[in-house]
Amino acid sequence: MSELTQPLDGEPAARVLVAGASGFTGALAAQLVWRHPRLELVRVTARSEAGTRLDSLYPRYRVPLELEELDVSGAGDCEAAIVAYPHGAAAPVVAGLREQGVLVVDLSADFRLRDPKEYERWYGERSAPDLLEGAVYGLTELHRERIAAAELVANPGCYPTAAILALAPLAADGLVEDVVIDAKSGVSGAGRGGSDFVTVDENFTPYGTDGHRHEPEIAQELRALGADVPLTFVPHLLPIDQGELVSCYVRTARELGGEELAELYRGRYDEEPFVELTDAPPGVRDVRDTNLCRIHVTANGNGRTMVFAAIDNLWKGASGQAIQNLNLMLDLPETEGLK
Amino acid sequence: MSELTQPLDGEPAARVLVAGASGFTGALAAQLVWRHPRLELVRVTARSEAGTRLDSLYPRYRVPLELEELDVSGAGDCEAAIVAYPHGAAAPVVAGLREQGVLVVDLSADFRLRDPKEYERWYGERSAPDLLEGAVYGLTELHRERIAAAELVANPGCYPTAAILALAPLAADGLVEDVVIDAKSGVSGAGRGGSDFVTVDENFTPYGTDGHRHEPEIAQELRALGADVPLTFVPHLLPIDQGELVSCYVRTARELGGEELAELYRGRYDEEPFVELTDAPPGVRDVRDTNLCRIHVTANGNGRTMVFAAIDNLWKGASGQAIQNLNLMLDLPETEGLK
Amino acid sequence: MSELTQPLDGEPAARVLVAGASGFTGALAAQLVWRHPRLELVRVTARSEAGTRLDSLYPRYRVPLELEELDVSGAGDCEAAIVAYPHGAAAPVVAGLREQGVLVVDLSADFRLRDPKEYERWYGERSAPDLLEGAVYGLTELHRERIAAAELVANPGCYPTAAILALAPLAADGLVEDVVIDAKSGVSGAGRGGSDFVTVDENFTPYGTDGHRHEPEIAQELRALGADVPLTFVPHLLPIDQGELVSCYVRTARELGGEELAELYRGRYDEEPFVELTDAPPGVRDVRDTNLCRIHVTANGNGRTMVFAAIDNLWKGASGQAIQNLNLMLDLPETEGLK
Amino acid sequence: MSELTQPLDGEPAARVLVAGASGFTGALAAQLVWRHPRLELVRVTARSEAGTRLDSLYPRYRVPLELEELDVSGAGDCEAAIVAYPHGAAAPVVAGLREQGVLVVDLSADFRLRDPKEYERWYGERSAPDLLEGAVYGLTELHRERIAAAELVANPGCYPTAAILALAPLAADGLVEDVVIDAKSGVSGAGRGGSDFVTVDENFTPYGTDGHRHEPEIAQELRALGADVPLTFVPHLLPIDQGELVSCYVRTARELGGEELAELYRGRYDEEPFVELTDAPPGVRDVRDTNLCRIHVTANGNGRTMVFAAIDNLWKGASGQAIQNLNLMLDLPETEGLK
Repeated sequence: MSELTQPLDGEPAARVLVAGASGFTGALAAQLVWRHPRLELVRVTARSEAGTRLDSLYPRYRVPLELEELDVSGAGDCEAAIVAYPHGAAAPVVAGLREQGVLVVDLSADFRLRDPKEYERWYGERSAPDLLEGAVYGLTELHRERIAAAELVANPGCYPTAAILALAPLAADGLVEDVVIDAKSGVSGAGRGGSDFVTVDENFTPYGTDGHRHEPEIAQELRALGADVPLTFVPHLLPIDQGELVSCYVRTARELGGEELAELYRGRYDEEPFVELTDAPPGVRDVRDTNLCRIHVTANGNGRTMVFAAIDNLWKGASGQAIQNLNLMLDLPETEGLK
Repeated sequence: MSELTQPLDGEPAARVLVAGASGFTGALAAQLVWRHPRLELVRVTARSEAGTRLDSLYPRYRVPLELEELDVSGAGDCEAAIVAYPHGAAAPVVAGLREQGVLVVDLSADFRLRDPKEYERWYGERSAPDLLEGAVYGLTELHRERIAAAELVANPGCYPTAAILALAPLAADGLVEDVVIDAKSGVSGAGRGGSDFVTVDENFTPYGTDGHRHEPEIAQELRALGADVPLTFVPHLLPIDQGELVSCYVRTARELGGEELAELYRGRYDEEPFVELTDAPPGVRDVRDTNLCRIHVTANGNGRTMVFAAIDNLWKGASGQAIQNLNLMLDLPETEGLK
Repeated sequence: MSELTQPLDGEPAARVLVAGASGFTGALAAQLVWRHPRLELVRVTARSEAGTRLDSLYPRYRVPLELEELDVSGAGDCEAAIVAYPHGAAAPVVAGLREQGVLVVDLSADFRLRDPKEYERWYGERSAPDLLEGAVYGLTELHRERIAAAELVANPGCYPTAAILALAPLAADGLVEDVVIDAKSGVSGAGRGGSDFVTVDENFTPYGTDGHRHEPEIAQELRALGADVPLTFVPHLLPIDQGELVSCYVRTARELGGEELAELYRGRYDEEPFVELTDAPPGVRDVRDTNLCRIHVTANGNGRTMVFAAIDNLWKGASGQAIQNLNLMLDLPETEGLK
Repeated sequence: MSELTQPLDGEPAARVLVAGASGFTGALAAQLVWRHPRLELVRVTARSEAGTRLDSLYPRYRVPLELEELDVSGAGDCEAAIVAYPHGAAAPVVAGLREQGVLVVDLSADFRLRDPKEYERWYGERSAPDLLEGAVYGLTELHRERIAAAELVANPGCYPTAAILALAPLAADGLVEDVVIDAKSGVSGAGRGGSDFVTVDENFTPYGTDGHRHEPEIAQELRALGADVPLTFVPHLLPIDQGELVSCYVRTARELGGEELAELYRGRYDEEPFVELTDAPPGVRDVRDTNLCRIHVTANGNGRTMVFAAIDNLWKGASGQAIQNLNLMLDLPETEGLK
């Protein structure tokens, strides 16, 4: 019953290209554009699987388009693109698309870190550095207005999305003195072919304990909010496919009670369409296949504030947030195509 | 091929009763006694499943004995017992067995907390309080000599086992100023029938965020080692059956380098038969079905020491450690029956 | 961001009650009605959890209604109801609702089997037997017209849905001589609280090998199609939450080649909105959270025809098909609210 | 606590080499030799990971030896070898080892199929065909005496092990007329790196539906037992790491009652140390990490006999059976090192 024509609702607001659609985040981005009532999915491309239909690679996404090789020079027939390339490989493609006047949401890390030295330390030499200045860090809830005006959005990493949303209310009020972020993610974060079943199944293990790329990204945004503080970040690998939870342990400048915390978080997030404050700790299953971030904040009676945030790493942590940002860039309702 | 007679190696050192053998930890304790070359498994009892053969409840443990109702007054034909009852229900049974002169390893919480108020706060009214004084907290690596001389051992909780082993070297040297313990456990810790598959599968969630019973147990032992410090402890539920990992984030009194940390931990654990120090973060799969605790310690370059410890919650976190303690109480080699 | 009002598309076609909404299938039925553009979810009821909000029991379904106790006598304000009660308990409720003139889709087995002796053999005494005559077996693809005219639809069991769809083209052409159905299901089929995690995890086991309730249901429908033949049906339990696959091994009246088989199946299913014929064997993951049945048919070169069918047991195997049927009963497009 | 010297029990009966020890079956074979009281593990080799310690690749196996490159010409210091190479690559290594006079258990398919055409059809050109005649098919329960006298044993595939054990009693009595084998395996059968987590997790799918290499192997052995009958074999992939279940549906020459079946199976298997007949269908969890095959046979009252057999594909389906065979070849007790 895969329908061969896209179920659009009237004239599309934009024609969209998804580059790198054979990976997990690219394929989901393609599906979200395909089922979006106002975006037309014009082309899906892949570096090594051109000629394959996307719905044979990802039957459950049901996108009946054939993967093509990317021809950047011919991309001018699209108003917008989502680029799902590995870091390093993304920047030149983004540069080419921008030259054609195409709006870009880039899922890679290539335009996230403002500090060139930090970028080089974690990712190697940067290409297209001139585009950096205009790029906006795409954590929608923090930078909504700048995203709406941007032509290039650097979509955040999955861990930073959850961690920054968890900590922003405290950081913006200057309350954070020190923070430990114990993060856990399902394996789709590692990309297609990234994780052997037998190694992961019935296992659970920390990784990146001597430094992880997402740490400077979190630090950069907390700093921008006013919290230039010691940060400890350790990711762990969960034996599930999708889902991510960060547990944040914050030493605060002064003791905060439960009600004060609740009010602080409600103040920032009550109007947010994709942030839910919960009375009990969130489970990753509750946000599976949604663009939601569910947050629970509490005081432990020991002078420490604890914040738990759950997202689906492929949705709010990647492709869902990309659509959220694209909606803003195209002046569409922020939640369009994401419910 | 279940053998109907126990494969003993000569005259047994003790005749052993396992009470509460129909639950996860009791059943494993029964199996470990059954395959132990020097312990004779005389009887297995259960409160509600008398008449059932243990190997029909737990085929993979292959213990061909029928569960009986417990008759404490007739338990004097055994030299030792492992009691796997819920807290509250355990104490009277333990008292009865002690009256018969039976050595006891108690898997419940009934004799772990020294402070009666703490006990009551978390578990309710305590029975058999007079036995408390003689009870020894059975974290083998900390209290080996007292355990060897004890007649009643209070076997530690699973989280405290991993957390205290992770922190003891730092605590004993007065180096801990503050600690966050982010703990994760498979669901067998919740006991038989405790967790519905659909609720747990593909999920991951914090729990006990407003206080967990294992926190005072950890605090008590750290205090005894000299670390009376702020402690934050949050457990999370992993979608696996067995396995537990604690991630400890320690602010230390002074900055500790990697080599100094390694030496400190080697100094305490190098001779320990069931503690392994690892160069990389441990995974729970690496210790599955073993009595090992694998520990990785590292400095994060940010003034914080991180310690990760993995155990199998049913083995080192419960029944394996019970055998380890029983070996000591009976003057057997500590590792007998545990390899 | 749970929206407190239902996102309806104009005047609803019917006001709908979901009875028994605290179980897996009832909760999903409630969600499917809630997000259905043409159905208004008026009330959700539960036998033991009245007063609880459905979205606290099932956060990911996001239905912000409070569970009520069922008052059948006041149900006349609804045009239609989906009843998700256990067998035996369902029939009296269905009878009461029918007395109020409410259209009913019943998810239980109470009105599936035409033969009273078969019903009694598997389920015990039947109540409301007079309703049986008017009840239509709700396998949509087989009985579409009768369902559209029905006032009471007996929604099929999950295994029968997959098995009958897999075999119908062969059965209707008189080609089946004998069939083995090796069926596998995720654990949500067993209902809430039905399966302990530790027992199911990393396990796989046959069950019901001395007879399963779904066998007479399959036999009844195959017989109605003309295939009154020996039938072997064995279910197995998969360590996953949702998803079901049946592998059917058919001895046919005459040898059938691959192309003939393909044509036979295309002839029956090409126009079906929820049946997909696939070139490769289907995986249950491909149909997760969809109302699709994916079927692969092939000859094994050995005189045997093999048919594999995958469904989501909660969707096409229960609540999704209930909506599909309700759409027909209410003269709505069959696929409304199911994409 | 990994012990650096092997815990041997007196003088070893043989010095053993494990070639291809970096894969799942080779690594387990190495561990089983290491913990075997009468076999000395002299060397472990690997084609691409020489220099790595085996216990860093497989921590839970705890074999503290470094992988070396294989030097067949120097293998004469060993009495026996277990070869865990892929098919095609195994034969030349086996030939080289035999030239050195080393007894070999080969885990590959290279010497399993007697019919050269069948081999070529499924595996391509065969090397070392002259060794075929002396090779014995290593399904211990069928060929015990010939294995004891063999110098080269072709260890069976995992599916054939379970299927042939399930069917042998019926086949040997000439009772099988036709058989359907619906087989399910965990993913470790596919080898290291063989299965991406996200593809397999929460999935279940048939594969090899147009023919699988293990089918001719099963057919060969059933034929040798006297059952040259139509055989349908379809494997499915389970989302677990270890474990395999075959469900066999047999049309028998005459109707067999439950008691007659039980007696037939007891007659063949009652003395077998690694076959257990069960009253209820076996689960794969019950045999995990054991060398057991658990079998349940029953009549379905429909003229069909059903046999279910569960094994651990890495143990009885590969490395455990290799040790069982090696014990026989070396005149050791068959169960030595396997309990």
